[in-house]
Amino acid sequence: MQEIHRTEIATLGEFGLIKHLTENIKLQNPETKYGVGDDAAVLEFNNQQTLVTTDLLMEGVHFDLVYTPMKHLGYKAAIVNFSDIYAMNGTPKQITVSLAVSKRFCIEDLELFYEGLQLACQLHGVDIVGGDTTSSVTGLAISITCIGVADKEQVTYRNGAKETDLVCVSGDLGAAYMGLQLLEREKAVFEGQKEINPDFSGKEYLLERQLKPEARKDIIEELSKAGIRPTAMMDISDGLSSELMHICTQSNVGCRVYEERIPIDYQTAVMAEELNMNVTTCALNGGEDYELLFTIPLTDHDKVSSIKGIKVIGHITKPELGCGLITRDGQEFELKAQGWNPLKEK
Amino acid sequence: MQEIHRTEIATLGEFGLIKHLTENIKLQNPETKYGVGDDAAVLEFNNQQTLVTTDLLMEGVHFDLVYTPMKHLGYKAAIVNFSDIYAMNGTPKQITVSLAVSKRFCIEDLELFYEGLQLACQLHGVDIVGGDTTSSVTGLAISITCIGVADKEQVTYRNGAKETDLVCVSGDLGAAYMGLQLLEREKAVFEGQKEINPDFSGKEYLLERQLKPEARKDIIEELSKAGIRPTAMMDISDGLSSELMHICTQSNVGCRVYEERIPIDYQTAVMAEELNMNVTTCALNGGEDYELLFTIPLTDHDKVSSIKGIKVIGHITKPELGCGLITRDGQEFELKAQGWNPLKEK
Repeated sequence: MQEIHRTEIATLGEFGLIKHLTENIKLQNPETKYGVGDDAAVLEFNNQQTLVTTDLLMEGVHFDLVYTPMKHLGYKAAIVNFSDIYAMNGTPKQITVSLAVSKRFCIEDLELFYEGLQLACQLHGVDIVGGDTTSSVTGLAISITCIGVADKEQVTYRNGAKETDLVCVSGDLGAAYMGLQLLEREKAVFEGQKEINPDFSGKEYLLERQLKPEARKDIIEELSKAGIRPTAMMDISDGLSSELMHICTQSNVGCRVYEERIPIDYQTAVMAEELNMNVTTCALNGGEDYELLFTIPLTDHDKVSSIKGIKVIGHITKPELGCGLITRDGQEFELKAQGWNPLKEK
Repeated sequence: MQEIHRTEIATLGEFGLIKHLTENIKLQNPETKYGVGDDAAVLEFNNQQTLVTTDLLMEGVHFDLVYTPMKHLGYKAAIVNFSDIYAMNGTPKQITVSLAVSKRFCIEDLELFYEGLQLACQLHGVDIVGGDTTSSVTGLAISITCIGVADKEQVTYRNGAKETDLVCVSGDLGAAYMGLQLLEREKAVFEGQKEINPDFSGKEYLLERQLKPEARKDIIEELSKAGIRPTAMMDISDGLSSELMHICTQSNVGCRVYEERIPIDYQTAVMAEELNMNVTTCALNGGEDYELLFTIPLTDHDKVSSIKGIKVIGHITKPELGCGLITRDGQEFELKAQGWNPLKEK
């Protein structure tokens, strides 16, 4: 390699790096409606909007095969991509699947991976249309690209939130992160010891949220039925704080969310206490929930209240007010994006 | 992982594995016109055909950073995907780019990679619309997905070759493979020794073919101008033999190609002699040429003869005749796919 000045990637972090590398990109094709910067890119062919999203998952960074069954991994790898398409208010239609495998893997491993993949695809009506299968020197790499469609008027970006809009989330938050903590703890305890079955009873939900997350197709359908069109939307993969700040930055607004309104499951709260962690911090920064975060006009308050599984957690403000969390005792804290960042110095 | 019977992946090889894993996939969406099995998948939205292709490149398997500059790597990573779209007789329009990088890489490395990527995109009128940037425990992984378009009547699959069709290739073959041999030889010689500049004079073409391949947009345009619509087409990434057999198998035909007609550059021939290799074998099995292999109706013979850079190398036969090579001395050999296969036991 050439002798050049070397700047550590950690100085920028994931989002900084993407911004740095892509800020000079000029779009050339009239069919390209939206490029880098949202859950998916938006292309337009003959007046139909096509959505494209992609994820690259690396063993040792995104998953640990010690406690992740291959079938679950296949399922999750597909789901996280569908989630990005739903987060644009679209419908996933096709995926391509690329795998790089080391010699450690056998055909049966990949069959299980494909079983999980196909199960997710069947549930969401998605076709596997191609991919690439190759070898890797170490570990497993999984790259999935998902293509979806949406009517032109329905596509929902991150940049449409308006002052007085309500901030909503689906499901509950922090459970996937607690599931990961639990698995990591059991791994550390039992490492090297065979024939031990850790007792996960009473914590099944946490494991399921980590190992078999769902993409909220149902929420998209409910919103559509109720005639609600979100003004901004994204899925919660890196943590509520981080995603809220993306929406606020891109929409040039601020927000206030209320600690007491953040939906947290009972098992999440119990586990946080067991680990001596603040459950709100876990919900704000945990990541991998794959729930939907969206804003809707204030006038849709009654409509949204009637949908099960959606919670209004706050509202959008003027930009100068920043992004704030109101705690249970009425104090206000500035939200910080402390979510998962694979490219940040640990 | 579960206790299951373990079958080594090498027993199937890349194509066998893909077939095995994908043969049970049923397509669910009417928009999915063609799935696994060609250079790209074909989707149809509002009567426009959308093409999707993807490639996963792993350090240590697909590229060696000892002799591959990051800018060239970015250029090549884009080009190999464009080539797949041209091989469907389409036009590439957008790519998504996912990178997994280890700590060994700095921001300047990625800037150079993106420079190469953007150069290729500018030349081919393609937009970078998204991607994923994450970390890797070891090495660099690059996953690119390319979206292209084609008129419905123009999409060219691998399965349309008919008896008496002419077999054509663009450019010349084997040079990229010779370039790789040259680089590997110099790497072995100079490993560990700094400040040595190997002398590549007289072999520049070989290096260029390996490090900076081109996708044959020009050939697609020439064919279109001449009013020739190939009956089958694919790009030569794994080697002429392997690709010819794909076309013949999928079209249910046989073929005869003539050794003396296979286009080989002077530098390729010299290098093969230097390395004591059979140049025809290199051209048949070398791979990474990214030239186009296609079949056209016999009646287009005169039209195709007038296009510079295309050579007729043989013709399509009945399936029972198999795939044969006629040597310079008139002998006939059955073609074997001995091209590059990342999942085969070495």
